[in-house]
Formats: sequence, structure tokens, C-alpha cells
Amino acid sequence: MEFTQIEGGVTAVPGFLACGVHAGLKKDGLDIAMIYNPVLCSCAGVFTSNKIKAAPLLVTMDKLKLKHGYAHGIVINSGNANACTGISGFINAKNMCAVAANRLGTDEDYILVASTGVIGEPLPMDKITKGIELAVKSLSKSGGHDAAKAIMTTDLTVKEFALSFEIDGKKVHMGGMAKGSGMIHPNMATMLAYITTDISISPDVLKKALREVTDDTFNMITVDGDTSTNDMVVVFASGEAGNAPIIEDTSKGYEAFVEALRHVCTVLAKDIARDGEGATTLIEVNVKNALTKRDAKLAAKSVVGSNLFKAAVFGKDANWGRIICAVGYSGAGFDPGKVDIYIGDIQVARDGAGIEFDEERAKKLLSMGTVSVTVDFKQGDAEATAWGCDLSYDYVRINASYRT
Amino acid sequence: MEFTQIEGGVTAVPGFLACGVHAGLKKDGLDIAMIYNPVLCSCAGVFTSNKIKAAPLLVTMDKLKLKHGYAHGIVINSGNANACTGISGFINAKNMCAVAANRLGTDEDYILVASTGVIGEPLPMDKITKGIELAVKSLSKSGGHDAAKAIMTTDLTVKEFALSFEIDGKKVHMGGMAKGSGMIHPNMATMLAYITTDISISPDVLKKALREVTDDTFNMITVDGDTSTNDMVVVFASGEAGNAPIIEDTSKGYEAFVEALRHVCTVLAKDIARDGEGATTLIEVNVKNALTKRDAKLAAKSVVGSNLFKAAVFGKDANWGRIICAVGYSGAGFDPGKVDIYIGDIQVARDGAGIEFDEERAKKLLSMGTVSVTVDFKQGDAEATAWGCDLSYDYVRINASYRT
Repeated sequence: MEFTQIEGGVTAVPGFLACGVHAGLKKDGLDIAMIYNPVLCSCAGVFTSNKIKAAPLLVTMDKLKLKHGYAHGIVINSGNANACTGISGFINAKNMCAVAANRLGTDEDYILVASTGVIGEPLPMDKITKGIELAVKSLSKSGGHDAAKAIMTTDLTVKEFALSFEIDGKKVHMGGMAKGSGMIHPNMATMLAYITTDISISPDVLKKALREVTDDTFNMITVDGDTSTNDMVVVFASGEAGNAPIIEDTSKGYEAFVEALRHVCTVLAKDIARDGEGATTLIEVNVKNALTKRDAKLAAKSVVGSNLFKAAVFGKDANWGRIICAVGYSGAGFDPGKVDIYIGDIQVARDGAGIEFDEERAKKLLSMGTVSVTVDFKQGDAEATAWGCDLSYDYVRINASYRT
Repeated sequence: MEFTQIEGGVTAVPGFLACGVHAGLKKDGLDIAMIYNPVLCSCAGVFTSNKIKAAPLLVTMDKLKLKHGYAHGIVINSGNANACTGISGFINAKNMCAVAANRLGTDEDYILVASTGVIGEPLPMDKITKGIELAVKSLSKSGGHDAAKAIMTTDLTVKEFALSFEIDGKKVHMGGMAKGSGMIHPNMATMLAYITTDISISPDVLKKALREVTDDTFNMITVDGDTSTNDMVVVFASGEAGNAPIIEDTSKGYEAFVEALRHVCTVLAKDIARDGEGATTLIEVNVKNALTKRDAKLAAKSVVGSNLFKAAVFGKDANWGRIICAVGYSGAGFDPGKVDIYIGDIQVARDGAGIEFDEERAKKLLSMGTVSVTVDFKQGDAEATAWGCDLSYDYVRINASYRT
């Protein structure tokens, strides 16, 4: 299938409006984002598996259920997670939707809500209310970039991506934005990520596609092993592309849609990993020839999650012992006497034991900003890829003083 | 029960000899340790749950099985883990035992072996052989301290502890030594720790006691979430105290022995956590009033394992949101609306939501070298304690350049 990368993020899809405004939750910069489509969209979400779920997640999950997977848009604030804020936090999250819906002239249950930032502090609702009013006025066809900026916390880069493809002669658009940085180790959910598309698809099938894709993309990245209270991915599909509606996973166009969604989510997931707090290097770990997909996933995630290997990458040290050690405690099934390991194209271990390799060339590979590690189990044909980043002094610095 | 702390480590127990010598595996300092008792001892061990087990572990496990839990001693080298070294690594580990047994004049299967250090490099057997020969000559009644030094890698402190207690009028001694520092997140096993005692106990009962105690002590510490390929705890019991042999867990003295063992292992485990690579602060997390012990353990270990909370402690930031977040993704069952959290004696959250607290006093508590966190589930009566350390710049520095 062919995709064409197009400019922009969530507003690269015709019909979607967005914006980012400054409401004063963060000292500087944009801190309230909105995505809105006057057309009622099919909508699906995946949410954190953390037992502690922030109020906006509970509210959004509730609305999606209540309205059977239809929504007009979402309002998102950064600078405050509205998590562990008790009953008043729940009321505040609901009020964010109500204020937005009132100004937009729609049903409040068609407006979703999300928050990201510090846990446990009450939302300053006066600032939020004014910010939402300003956001509604600021919605525009070119507001996607500002929206992507407004959801950032310690992120250094704006994360957005868009593409178009064809289904049966109809041009379909898809755009996405995401924020990540710390507390990133999604599990059946992920960081904040929002995807828009004009494909025609039913909410149920959209949900199926999103779950499948999330498991292979956002759920395969890790920055620090901490699964946030606020993770969510939401997709809005307006149906304006005019394709024959996709109402089952056997419908024409479903496979193409999933492939496009996977592409957008992979780009955003890798952007999140690359921009992990303090990261200097994107680490990609491919586990291949495993007996099951589960084994491959466990092993790949364990390696990108190992503090010791992450610190070695920061030090440009080809310490493959830490790779095989992390594979060993991952819970994956494999034969220790069969494992081959490669850093880039350099083989560093064969049949579970070290071999001579060019340390200088390995050091060079580790200094290029992206490093790929391959672990070959030589047993079956399942494979998986996980992404992460190195562990640097700056990770410690950023997180030692996050609230101050 | 009353314990009397006594001087020394493994040689605080009459009858045990030990030593530490320099064989040249490390640039400087002692790098081969030996513990030996001419009396054949009951012996039990627990070993890493990592699927990748270093050759010396496989050899030691094999000997304990072959000899039904009896041994005279152990030879341990630091500076090289003899892990992922293939068949020759296995042969080298066996040869370490053979060389020692030959010089000691005993059966090689009564001598155990352990290694710690870099993974994947062959042991320099010429140096090792000479070192073992020197070690046998250096064995002494006061060699425990040197032995404890010789098993250190990036450890900054020597870890040893000893006590005595009475069973039925007979004085029993117990001494221990350990090494830790990085790659510390034991699971059904732990770092290197060796315990000697003169109690009379059968190997089977000794094994039961060791497993029970290890689960509550060494398995409740974490430095970085990495479970090593080389973790082991081994206990030697000579029987020379002259108590009526403990041959069942209902035998007189069993409970007292377990309590003493728990005390020694807790001291060593906390020493390991406090001396985690780059650590400035020992973190103790108590989870209480949980529905089950498993829930309490999962939650406590998750908090001490959170990079984000560890970095906050390094920054003296009372960021309790990261505590509740780590509890939330721990897998423990609990009611998010009931959780209370304390840092020291300062309550920072009630019923899952933040409350006002004295940030300045919290900062002071976080600056004292040891901080205790209490998480109260207010549901049942199970509890657990876990220990860890903060995440500092020095952890990154040490691990970015471990091999160089």
C-alpha cells in the first residue's frame, strides 16, 4: 500500500479544526488544546491500565460508552494532570467538557477531556474556563501545530505526522499528534495521542483497529517503566472521505486503514521514545525467530527498559551482557544456548556466548543518535520491535526537580 | 527473642575460616574470596530466577543436589561473572572447585563456586588458579572481613554482620557477608550473600528457612530493576553449637533460627539497598493494611523501583503523585479511593487524593540519608516492606562506563 506523507498534524484532515492557547497553567507557552469537528465522528480510545486513573480519563471513558463511540472533539490541558484530586477533580473534568460544549453549541457528552502534568493538585478552574472560551474562539483549519504544542510537558519536540492514501478511488486523510517524555511505559494504553481521519468507519471497528495497532506501537515503547495515570490514545473518524463505510473488519478498506493507522502510530511512538526525558539516542530492539509473539514482545520490552543497558548506551559502551541479562529476566521463553545478538550489523554474541567483535566500530554505531539491537532466538518465526531511549544525567536532572 | 550483635562477619562463627586475596582479576584490591569449614556443613542456596544463569550457579546448584545439601565451603571471584561464556565457562567453574578441593584435600563436589563482574568474558584461568592456591594458604579464623572485601565490585561499603543467640542453653552464632550495588532486583534469589552458622540443622529444613527469609529480605530490595545472571545466597551450618538437631520446621529452635536468619538477612539487604550505585538515600517503603501479602509486596516493590520516584528523592522533592502512580501500576489489588500516604510521619495523601502538607519539613526528611514511605490501603491486615535507593547522576556515570 502506498501512503503519501502530507503536511501538518490533526488538521491535515479536511473538516477538523484545532487550536492551542495559553491559559496560564504553565508559566509560559500554550497549555490548552482543542480538536473539534462540526460533523459527529466515530470515536475510539484506549486508556491507561494503571489502577489509578485520572478524573478526565474516567469522564472520557464514560462519555464514549454513553454515546456509543461518537464525539465531536476533545479539550486537553497540560500543566496539571487532574489525577488523585478526589470528587472535585471529577467535577472539574466534567465541567471542562460542559464549558467547551456550551460555547461550541453542542451536547457536553460529545466533548471528551484529557489532562497531563503534575499529579495531585487541584485544577485552577478560573484559568481553565477562560482558556477554554479562548480556545473555542481560536479553532482553525491550521491549528493542529499549536494544538500539538499545547499538550507538551517536558517534551522538547512537537510530535505530529499526517498522510493520505486511497481506498477504492477515494482519497483518505489521517493526521496525528502526541506528547510523551517521562512516565512512559504504556500498557494497553499509551501517552496522550490523538488521531484524526476522514475515513468512514463504525465506532466498533475503529476500536478494534486502534487496539490492534496500539499493542504494536505505543505499547512497545518505554522511557522509564512508569505507566502514567493519564495515558490515552483517541481516534476521531469523520466519514467525510466518502468511502463505502467500513462496518466490519472484513469490509473493503479495513486492512488499508489499519496499515495507515499503524504507520502514523509507529511514527508518533518512535518520536516519543526518541524524545524521552534526557535522551540522546533512540534504541530500537528487534527480537526475531521467537516461538511466540508474546515471547518476542516480552524480551524486546525488557531490553529497552533495562536501566543498565540504557546507561551503557548513554556511555556508548557495547555492553551486550546487559542485553542478554535483560532477555533472561524478561519472562520470555527461549533457549539460552541459542541466542544470537547484534548491535547494528555487528554480531556480538552467538549461541548465548560472547564472540570477538570490533569494539571501536560498535562505539561508532552507538554514537549515531539511533541504535538498533537484534536478538535472534533461532527457534520459531515470531517477532516484535520495541523502542526506548538511553538513560542520561539529564533524565535525573529533569525528574529530580519536576515540580519546582 | 534476644540477639547479641557480635564482631565480624562469616568468621564470627567458630570453626569457619575465610580469606580474601588479590589474583589480578581487578586492577587493585582483593578479588578471590574463600569460606571453608573442615566440618562438613548442611548447606542451602537460592539462585537467580534469570533464565540466563552464569556457569558457577549451574555448577553450584548441581553440587548441592549431588551431595544432598552438604558442603565444606565456597570459592568466589569478583571482576568477571563467568556468564555467557559457553562450555568453556562451565568447565572453568568446575575447575575452580577442583583446584580448591585439591589443595584443601577434600572432594571437589563439596566445594561450591560463585563469580561476579562483567558478563561474557572468559575467566583468566592462570590468574584464577594461582589466586585459589594463595587463598587456601590464606584461610584464617579472622579472614571474614577480607572475604567480604574480595567479593565487592562497584560496592563502596563492606557488608557484613554477625550475631549470637541461645537455643535451649546452647550459644549459636551466625555471620554473613554480601555484595550488591548495581543489577539489583532479586527475584526468588538475590545478590551474592553468604551466611555461616554453627547451628545443627538438616539441609532440607535449612533450605525451607532460607527460602522463607529470602522472600522477605533480599527479594524485597531493588536498585535498578535488573535481575542479575549471578545472584545467589548460600548458608552453611556446621552443627557445632551442639543444639538438638533441627530436623523439621516444628523442631525446637526452628523459629528462633528463622528469626535470627531474618535479622541477619534484613541487615545485609538494607546495606545493599543503601549502597546502590550512586545512591545518596536509602528508601524504605511500608505497605500496610492490604488484603493480601502479595498485594502489599507488589505495591512496595513497585514504589522503590520507580525511576521517577527515585529521581524525585534524589531531588528532595516530596512528589507523592509518583508514589501513588507506582502503586497503581504495580498489579496490586486495592481501592484507589482509600489510599493514605505518608512520607516519614507527614501525611501527604488521604483517600487517594492530595492534602496540604508542610513541603519544607518534607524536604528536610528527604535529606536525611534514609526516608521511609508508608502506604496505607485501609482494607485488610497484610503488610510488606521493600528497600531501595534514589536515582542519581552517579548511577548513570558508573553504568555508562562500567566496562572501561
